[in-house]
Amino acid sequence: MSAKLNVVPFVSVDSMMTLVHRTGVERFLADLARYIEDDFRRWENFDKTPRIASHSLEGVIELMPTSDGNHYGFKYVNGHPKNTRDGLQTVTAFGLLADVSTGYPILLTEMTILTALRTAAMSAVAAKYLAPRGASRMALIGNGAQSEFQALAFKALLGVDEVRLYDVDPAATRKCAANLAKHGFSITACRTATEAVEGAQIITTVTADKQYATVLSDNMVGSGVHINAVGGDCPGKTEIQREVLLRSDVFVEYPPQTRIEGDIQQLPADHPVEELWKVIAGLVPGRRDERQITLFDSVGFAIEDFSALRYVHERILETGIYDELDLIADPDDPRDLFGMLMRSPAAAAA
Amino acid sequence: MSAKLNVVPFVSVDSMMTLVHRTGVERFLADLARYIEDDFRRWENFDKTPRIASHSLEGVIELMPTSDGNHYGFKYVNGHPKNTRDGLQTVTAFGLLADVSTGYPILLTEMTILTALRTAAMSAVAAKYLAPRGASRMALIGNGAQSEFQALAFKALLGVDEVRLYDVDPAATRKCAANLAKHGFSITACRTATEAVEGAQIITTVTADKQYATVLSDNMVGSGVHINAVGGDCPGKTEIQREVLLRSDVFVEYPPQTRIEGDIQQLPADHPVEELWKVIAGLVPGRRDERQITLFDSVGFAIEDFSALRYVHERILETGIYDELDLIADPDDPRDLFGMLMRSPAAAAA
Repeated sequence: MSAKLNVVPFVSVDSMMTLVHRTGVERFLADLARYIEDDFRRWENFDKTPRIASHSLEGVIELMPTSDGNHYGFKYVNGHPKNTRDGLQTVTAFGLLADVSTGYPILLTEMTILTALRTAAMSAVAAKYLAPRGASRMALIGNGAQSEFQALAFKALLGVDEVRLYDVDPAATRKCAANLAKHGFSITACRTATEAVEGAQIITTVTADKQYATVLSDNMVGSGVHINAVGGDCPGKTEIQREVLLRSDVFVEYPPQTRIEGDIQQLPADHPVEELWKVIAGLVPGRRDERQITLFDSVGFAIEDFSALRYVHERILETGIYDELDLIADPDDPRDLFGMLMRSPAAAAA
Repeated sequence: MSAKLNVVPFVSVDSMMTLVHRTGVERFLADLARYIEDDFRRWENFDKTPRIASHSLEGVIELMPTSDGNHYGFKYVNGHPKNTRDGLQTVTAFGLLADVSTGYPILLTEMTILTALRTAAMSAVAAKYLAPRGASRMALIGNGAQSEFQALAFKALLGVDEVRLYDVDPAATRKCAANLAKHGFSITACRTATEAVEGAQIITTVTADKQYATVLSDNMVGSGVHINAVGGDCPGKTEIQREVLLRSDVFVEYPPQTRIEGDIQQLPADHPVEELWKVIAGLVPGRRDERQITLFDSVGFAIEDFSALRYVHERILETGIYDELDLIADPDDPRDLFGMLMRSPAAAAA
């Protein structure tokens, strides 16, 4: 608890970028992965609730709260596909961490960048348990805002150093290749998705298509691969052909949410899936053999944001990279809020 | 929309105090009341959901979202009775307003002070429709953090200029009386609650008792009064004796929430209550005659916070009293979040 009770540490976009660079992007991703694994291992300690969504014709605004009994966290996140037309982000986010014992916020932070990092870290954590051993080549289908983060997380956690890029828009592929060029990858820009998956042990799909699409069709998927399906993440938005899902062992974050939002929305509600936390906790096996097709149907869950908030909170205490936000009224006498208001210097200045 | 897409206007505790003083407390309360009335009149346009609560042994943290289709708002609020023991506030809050069409936040603000103001404004709005005509004397039972705001709102909206104060702790009454002395009230400090209600046309109960209590018993309530029951506002916390409720016509904000949190938690779930918005919209009568006992079972609802957020947003645009918060990542190319991160000055500085 800060000595200044009114103050909440705030991590701006600028501070987040400084924090990432001070830490190093790959270490930041590896640290996030460790925090996520720790929290997934104690999955049963968390309050879990599907996100609370407010839908409109143009998009959605969601609150994603969770708590482990010591800390409470939530993320505010929007999704507005038409935003890019106006030069705005499709997805923006911020989040808050609070102390459960007092209810006082202890961190407010931007989460647009942080969500991109935690999503990539989550994918790499899943692949650590599900991808074939020694995987070094990844197809990256969809080369938008999330693509580079995915590549770096797989490099940091699994040593993937060869990426095969494909996007319907070649400009996106050029952007992704240019961004990744300085990070020690062997990069191949492909003209088709089929070309991209050639020889890849891991296939990551992370397109922005806002409707039922077939980014990965049955004929493209050979035995033994791991599919990291990131882009199918809201109702009506899928990427993976149904036949691929039926040939795969599907791993998910939180089944009640994934059945509505993930690629498995194409399957019956009782289609068997495995919860990833059980794999991480050692309760059920991950990859069992060389021929098995594994698929992580990623939609993003509140506990991952909680892990990210927890990590950022640790890092700002270590580095001092944050601002102080005068967010909490702090009267000398808790019963005298009115007196605080009336006696404040603001009264004289007004 | 700001030209600087990354910036969200932020109203700190200090800015809120400046804004209140620049406006004048009574005008601020009257303005809030007008915004609340406007929103209650169009009640059916709102997304309504009970608050999302995360309970712990020591307290509760809640998110209260709502939307009218144009704006989306939510409040974060905690309730930790034991906090005062450690010099902390029992209740702190902050809130956010966003543009539904883009999902972008347009206001982040402290809401500890703002909630005290909106709760008082809400009470006065209810009394405007329910209290006996020409009421000028109010009993104020419970003289804690909310009490002065209540008195001022009733003065601003109804012309109440005589208050009779009572609290189990005489120090609280002294504090309340001292705070109100400069605001043109005739003030009587009473030694019992029974003494406080003498001749009062309006009885406000706003105690902090965290359990079933009887602040107002049957013998204290004569015909024709309006009861403004503010302190019974969470499960297990009530103030009004059951017999009083049975003699009253009960008006509530949002029945599904009030039946759990309000004083009517003491009554069967099918006990008839009237929704206040219908009174304000002219669909059902408020006070019908001089002998009727009316009771507003106030618990606080998300739409009132929405009204308060909407008002503060208008006021900061008029006055410029806010800071700029660097909360939203704003890459030149929405698909190039990674490039923004890598090319930021933070990279060179790290």
